[in-house]
Amino acid sequence: MIKRRTKKKRTQESKKHIGQVPGTLIYTGKKSDKDFHVECFDYTKDHIEESILLNIEDAVNYKETDSVTWINVDGLKHTDKIEDIGKQYDLHPLVLEDIVNTSQRPKIDEYDDYLFVVLKMLYYDDEENIVIEQVSIVLGKNYVLTFQESEGDVFGSIRERLRLSNGRIRGLKSDYLMYALIDAIVDNYFSIIETLGNKIEDLETELFSGNARENINVEVQQLKREILKVRRAIFPLREIINRIEKGEHPLIYKRTINFFRDIYDHLIQVSENIDIYREMIWSLMDMYMTTISNKMNEVMKVLTIIATIFIPLTFIAGIYGMNFDNIPELHYKYSYHILIGVMVLLFLAMLYYFKRKKWL
Amino acid sequence: MIKRRTKKKRTQESKKHIGQVPGTLIYTGKKSDKDFHVECFDYTKDHIEESILLNIEDAVNYKETDSVTWINVDGLKHTDKIEDIGKQYDLHPLVLEDIVNTSQRPKIDEYDDYLFVVLKMLYYDDEENIVIEQVSIVLGKNYVLTFQESEGDVFGSIRERLRLSNGRIRGLKSDYLMYALIDAIVDNYFSIIETLGNKIEDLETELFSGNARENINVEVQQLKREILKVRRAIFPLREIINRIEKGEHPLIYKRTINFFRDIYDHLIQVSENIDIYREMIWSLMDMYMTTISNKMNEVMKVLTIIATIFIPLTFIAGIYGMNFDNIPELHYKYSYHILIGVMVLLFLAMLYYFKRKKWL
Amino acid sequence: MIKRRTKKKRTQESKKHIGQVPGTLIYTGKKSDKDFHVECFDYTKDHIEESILLNIEDAVNYKETDSVTWINVDGLKHTDKIEDIGKQYDLHPLVLEDIVNTSQRPKIDEYDDYLFVVLKMLYYDDEENIVIEQVSIVLGKNYVLTFQESEGDVFGSIRERLRLSNGRIRGLKSDYLMYALIDAIVDNYFSIIETLGNKIEDLETELFSGNARENINVEVQQLKREILKVRRAIFPLREIINRIEKGEHPLIYKRTINFFRDIYDHLIQVSENIDIYREMIWSLMDMYMTTISNKMNEVMKVLTIIATIFIPLTFIAGIYGMNFDNIPELHYKYSYHILIGVMVLLFLAMLYYFKRKKWL
Amino acid sequence: MIKRRTKKKRTQESKKHIGQVPGTLIYTGKKSDKDFHVECFDYTKDHIEESILLNIEDAVNYKETDSVTWINVDGLKHTDKIEDIGKQYDLHPLVLEDIVNTSQRPKIDEYDDYLFVVLKMLYYDDEENIVIEQVSIVLGKNYVLTFQESEGDVFGSIRERLRLSNGRIRGLKSDYLMYALIDAIVDNYFSIIETLGNKIEDLETELFSGNARENINVEVQQLKREILKVRRAIFPLREIINRIEKGEHPLIYKRTINFFRDIYDHLIQVSENIDIYREMIWSLMDMYMTTISNKMNEVMKVLTIIATIFIPLTFIAGIYGMNFDNIPELHYKYSYHILIGVMVLLFLAMLYYFKRKKWL
Amino acid sequence: MIKRRTKKKRTQESKKHIGQVPGTLIYTGKKSDKDFHVECFDYTKDHIEESILLNIEDAVNYKETDSVTWINVDGLKHTDKIEDIGKQYDLHPLVLEDIVNTSQRPKIDEYDDYLFVVLKMLYYDDEENIVIEQVSIVLGKNYVLTFQESEGDVFGSIRERLRLSNGRIRGLKSDYLMYALIDAIVDNYFSIIETLGNKIEDLETELFSGNARENINVEVQQLKREILKVRRAIFPLREIINRIEKGEHPLIYKRTINFFRDIYDHLIQVSENIDIYREMIWSLMDMYMTTISNKMNEVMKVLTIIATIFIPLTFIAGIYGMNFDNIPELHYKYSYHILIGVMVLLFLAMLYYFKRKKWL
Repeated sequence: MIKRRTKKKRTQESKKHIGQVPGTLIYTGKKSDKDFHVECFDYTKDHIEESILLNIEDAVNYKETDSVTWINVDGLKHTDKIEDIGKQYDLHPLVLEDIVNTSQRPKIDEYDDYLFVVLKMLYYDDEENIVIEQVSIVLGKNYVLTFQESEGDVFGSIRERLRLSNGRIRGLKSDYLMYALIDAIVDNYFSIIETLGNKIEDLETELFSGNARENINVEVQQLKREILKVRRAIFPLREIINRIEKGEHPLIYKRTINFFRDIYDHLIQVSENIDIYREMIWSLMDMYMTTISNKMNEVMKVLTIIATIFIPLTFIAGIYGMNFDNIPELHYKYSYHILIGVMVLLFLAMLYYFKRKKWL
Repeated sequence: MIKRRTKKKRTQESKKHIGQVPGTLIYTGKKSDKDFHVECFDYTKDHIEESILLNIEDAVNYKETDSVTWINVDGLKHTDKIEDIGKQYDLHPLVLEDIVNTSQRPKIDEYDDYLFVVLKMLYYDDEENIVIEQVSIVLGKNYVLTFQESEGDVFGSIRERLRLSNGRIRGLKSDYLMYALIDAIVDNYFSIIETLGNKIEDLETELFSGNARENINVEVQQLKREILKVRRAIFPLREIINRIEKGEHPLIYKRTINFFRDIYDHLIQVSENIDIYREMIWSLMDMYMTTISNKMNEVMKVLTIIATIFIPLTFIAGIYGMNFDNIPELHYKYSYHILIGVMVLLFLAMLYYFKRKKWL
Repeated sequence: MIKRRTKKKRTQESKKHIGQVPGTLIYTGKKSDKDFHVECFDYTKDHIEESILLNIEDAVNYKETDSVTWINVDGLKHTDKIEDIGKQYDLHPLVLEDIVNTSQRPKIDEYDDYLFVVLKMLYYDDEENIVIEQVSIVLGKNYVLTFQESEGDVFGSIRERLRLSNGRIRGLKSDYLMYALIDAIVDNYFSIIETLGNKIEDLETELFSGNARENINVEVQQLKREILKVRRAIFPLREIINRIEKGEHPLIYKRTINFFRDIYDHLIQVSENIDIYREMIWSLMDMYMTTISNKMNEVMKVLTIIATIFIPLTFIAGIYGMNFDNIPELHYKYSYHILIGVMVLLFLAMLYYFKRKKWL
Repeated sequence: MIKRRTKKKRTQESKKHIGQVPGTLIYTGKKSDKDFHVECFDYTKDHIEESILLNIEDAVNYKETDSVTWINVDGLKHTDKIEDIGKQYDLHPLVLEDIVNTSQRPKIDEYDDYLFVVLKMLYYDDEENIVIEQVSIVLGKNYVLTFQESEGDVFGSIRERLRLSNGRIRGLKSDYLMYALIDAIVDNYFSIIETLGNKIEDLETELFSGNARENINVEVQQLKREILKVRRAIFPLREIINRIEKGEHPLIYKRTINFFRDIYDHLIQVSENIDIYREMIWSLMDMYMTTISNKMNEVMKVLTIIATIFIPLTFIAGIYGMNFDNIPELHYKYSYHILIGVMVLLFLAMLYYFKRKKWL
Repeated sequence: MIKRRTKKKRTQESKKHIGQVPGTLIYTGKKSDKDFHVECFDYTKDHIEESILLNIEDAVNYKETDSVTWINVDGLKHTDKIEDIGKQYDLHPLVLEDIVNTSQRPKIDEYDDYLFVVLKMLYYDDEENIVIEQVSIVLGKNYVLTFQESEGDVFGSIRERLRLSNGRIRGLKSDYLMYALIDAIVDNYFSIIETLGNKIEDLETELFSGNARENINVEVQQLKREILKVRRAIFPLREIINRIEKGEHPLIYKRTINFFRDIYDHLIQVSENIDIYREMIWSLMDMYMTTISNKMNEVMKVLTIIATIFIPLTFIAGIYGMNFDNIPELHYKYSYHILIGVMVLLFLAMLYYFKRKKWL
């Protein structure tokens, strides 16, 4: 299930936002007490330096060097520190506002000196809930800045590849690093939608079995909402990657374009899967409705069979329970036995009738 | 709930409109007795003058000055006075007609000397009803005219920022003022759709609880209509902002474009939310229908269980209530007790049957 | 209700049309015996001449004058006379065919010397039925020809304004006259859709009241069909006006473009309303379905409550109606009274059970 | 009903097609024993020669003449003869393949010397089934070739007009002849969709009457499928005509363009009608579902009324049918009469209750 | 039924994929132990050489020759060997990654020296399941490489035509070979969708018969999913062929363009059929729902008729089963016979009532 708590929080926060001067930094994410944490990778083909920046002012040292620098910031709550970094890297106030506004829609903004991309990182937390975390990426000539809401991300393999001296990534520019980061995020989308796909298949199997739980429709609806929200997080990214691929921003080298096209293909594939899942969810609701209708039909049949058999028989019994002085049949010796026989025949006839109607 | 009264009024008024010479000023808003009220801010970076214009003729004084002037007119009922202002600022007759026709769709018209924008301001009144009020903005070289149906708006924070001498807004031109006004309106859309979102979530929770009120569908439908109407008020604005952002009207300076792009992003976000809410509303109706079906199913089951158990038993009792002279079973000593035993067994067998069918 | 008779007629007529040489004039409208009637306004800023043309050949006199001429023809049945006018004004055979083919879709055709527009005039007849009447407009350099199926139109106010010497219309060219005519027709669309909107609201109120008539769904469906047909008459006009506004036909002066843009805005507004009404109609059908389901649910509950209470009680009564020789309970003095007491308790328990289930 | 047999045949035939060398001529139409039949019209403004070509080689004689030649071929089964004609007129192998492949989608192919159009001729056969027959048209400089599956077409009126010496068609080129042929086919679409429209109206009237046949839904579904198939045959033609009208193929003279635009308008009209019919069909299904629900509701009401009235009364009768020794009421003189009175009162109270609930 | 096993496998495999360096070759297909198998056709108009390449290094020999070479690789599991071939033909790492990633979406990538196309081959396996197998095609100047997951394909007829010395294929370039391969795959789509069409018709016939199996909805849903998946495999190909046809890649000769346009037409036809099938599936679900509703209606009627007839009669019998001392009717001689008569009349009246209501 998508975490509700997060959503509620956002609502309160973003209300506070209304009426503020544009460019004011308001953090709209979770009010968790996660620490501020700045990680820095500075590398060329031949050397790599990995460090934790305790002093934000140090960040600026890497700005003008020839080596590629990746500065990863965790903890958007500390808006003042974000603002510091923004000043050192000459970021536009609206960029900073978007970085800390975690309800930002995925988008790309092109500035003269840098490219600003906002996208959503999706992963499952420990309780199997989908967490949607905003990642902002600033691509400069020799640096990449990434901003995450909190620690923990899908970039582990990239750190590993950076540390290896012989990987392709070390020999290329900052644009390839951005590609690698986005690729890692998009790769993770696949595992998210696979889990969604598995959930749908499980529900489908349960519904096809004809033995579904009563409240399965609640689960179907929740899955539908999950898909709706994942869709909203993922779909705008297509357009962004398309713009990177098509666009001619000088920071994106031609040799990297092919890789972005590859991401684009992946996103199309993810999107198609999501849309297929949406359609499958609709089918599930259909299945559920027919399941209910079928069950009601079955209940009705049982009732009808029982009532149709016994109500007429009870009526006959009622006839001979009447107290009229003159009911001739009552006094014949075997009339009781004959009547029982007639009733048995009627009973069998009814059964036969229902059998022929395929109700039994 | 959207105020119905307003709508009915509009209907009458706009009927009156039909057959009029184009360019005739017909006020189509609420016939409330709100006063006419003209507020004026005239400012440069260094000074600001705030006044209430009692004499409309004074408005023209600000037209040609170098300082930026914001003239805010409340009370569209006074069409003659609107016409006066229109003459002083050389507004096209169709512009004036659109200003007072409060059922106007949001739109933008570009004229040589000014830009005319109609949009909708949304807010909740005291009874938690959504009020849709039309705001018309005329952007000239050194002035911004705004026209509102009645007093009360979402521009409070802008007035505050104008009064402060060190805000960005004081140092910039009229186009930034227009941006700030539209931004304030759009920011308020967020609070509107958040409230709608909360309502949907409440209804959803109620429906998921399986314990929903009988007439919850009426509420769902009303919410659907509210969303439909909010959508209609908000959606055309995207296109308008897009045109401002893309267009090359000389009155919009390049440095302001980025800010309008920011509004555009916000509008896309609002629109997406509205569309997600629409889809969620459909899901709610689905949920409601399955809820009804499930309830009917439950009712049917109770009926069926009771009838299926007792109708056959009643039949048996009926058999031995018959008055035949010769019913041998009647005369054995323990036949009554045996029969009761048989009935209890039948009863238990039925219960077991229903348990196995999961009806109990 | 849309007049069915008209439709049936059209069907027969248009069948006759098949297999004809293109350009053959076949009147496909109502076979009413309305007279042929030609009305003529010839005006400049300073003078106006209003006349009824009894002789069609007179029409050509106005063709080459400098004054603006409006010739309005009522009665398309007289195809020979239409053809006469066509010859005098050099109209293309396909134009004449379209004029008398009243099932023509709204369209615009640009010819070298004139502009040909077909559109639909909508109004309510005396029995509150929507009448869709075709109006064809030919705009020439100094003349406007209009062709209507029968007398009676929405141009009354235009005639009035023409007669007044000081109206704007008198000082402008034929393109403004065409604008005024189309504007009058479009203005009338508003009153049509308002009536539709009111009908929808009435049905909605009735459905929300939970007390709707049995056959209300027939009305909902009819309303749906009305909207469908109004939509078909109105929607193509948007495209036509858009083409006039965007296009650069020499007959449309630049100063008139703004006015056509105004019509375009109105049409967008009408179209949006129609689409909202369509969606509301779907909601109404939903409401109706849930209403039926709710009613059935209520019926089922009544049945179930009664049956569930009395069937077991009847069974108990049946037990003690049996004629076994040895039923000890029958012979205790107060067993009857005790049994009645037990039954009352059972009855109350059932009531409590249903109350708790919220069925009562 | 669309002829099923045809479809089944096509399936078998087209399977044979798979794995063939492209350009191989495989006839995929009906295996009827219709003869091969070539009809030839050769005309100028002044003379006309009409003949039946027994020898296919004669066809080539007309290719290079200045007169316009229309060669109409019936009977696509004779693929060898089609191939002969193809060779004589230098047709591309894929063109010939498309001519005999009667499951071809409507399309247009432009070649240097000729234009190739495939479209569908629709008509009703004797049993009121829609027959979809493929017509291929090859337009050359001075000739038009048409290929039909079998004899019988909608070109009767064109033959008549050709024979008349004073018709427009005789004085114009081959492009006008093609226009006339397509126009005849499109005109016939109108009669097809009118019949469909009438069927829909009949079903609608039946459903509105509340007295519909049980299996009317089967008919509604069949009508839906018919519309689906007619739609598929007609819709692609719009695009084709649009391309002829817009395109600049040298074989289409400017004066003919207007006529093609006329066809285009007709096609838009047909398409709109089809789409409206589709929507009406959906409404019909809705109507049907509500009809069923209403009926079930009525059935339930009858059951509930009867059961609710008589089950309690039967219980009361059961009470006094018990055989307890001590039931004081049994021995009062008028207790029977009083009880009957009470029952009558109960009965009337129930009736009143149901009346108030509007169940009666 | 679409093979589930395949899908599950893919899921596991593609998970392994996440976090890998881009360009790493990960086979994501079935883990079957099919052998690696390389087939080679080298031909000119005059000679042909057919061989099985045991040594992959031999493949490079054919690269630079003037003759056309078709190298067909079966068995993508052997990623090292695929990599070998890739090196010899200078393929981009992303191309190789796409070749072995069998969950790749159909796509086209244009490189300077070659064209890379991924598409899906569909066929039925022995158990009538649809198998979706990925085929990758690399078109070079004088060679075509094809990569298939496993042995067995639809290219049999192409091999035959290659072996014949007089076929068109032998005289043309590698682009025609690629056309022939894609054409064979697309031709096979027709047989797939025909089978789907037949399944739909069978289900339709069953549903129309009113005698459908209980669980037919499961089959309908499965068919729906099959169509969804076939659609996903086929639809992207349209865009690819469109790009080949429109694009101006130097490897595609002008004379081959016409043939690709032919494929495009076929794909449009397949796509239209799929979309029509989707709509028909929706109709089937509708049919099924109405079938259930109709059945329930019938069940209800039976119950209602029986209950409505016998419950009142039973009540009357109950009346005269009461033990009141003074029930005068009990003692008349023929009152029993009269009562029976009355009951028979009531019974007949009820029957008449139901007949008139058309419930019988």
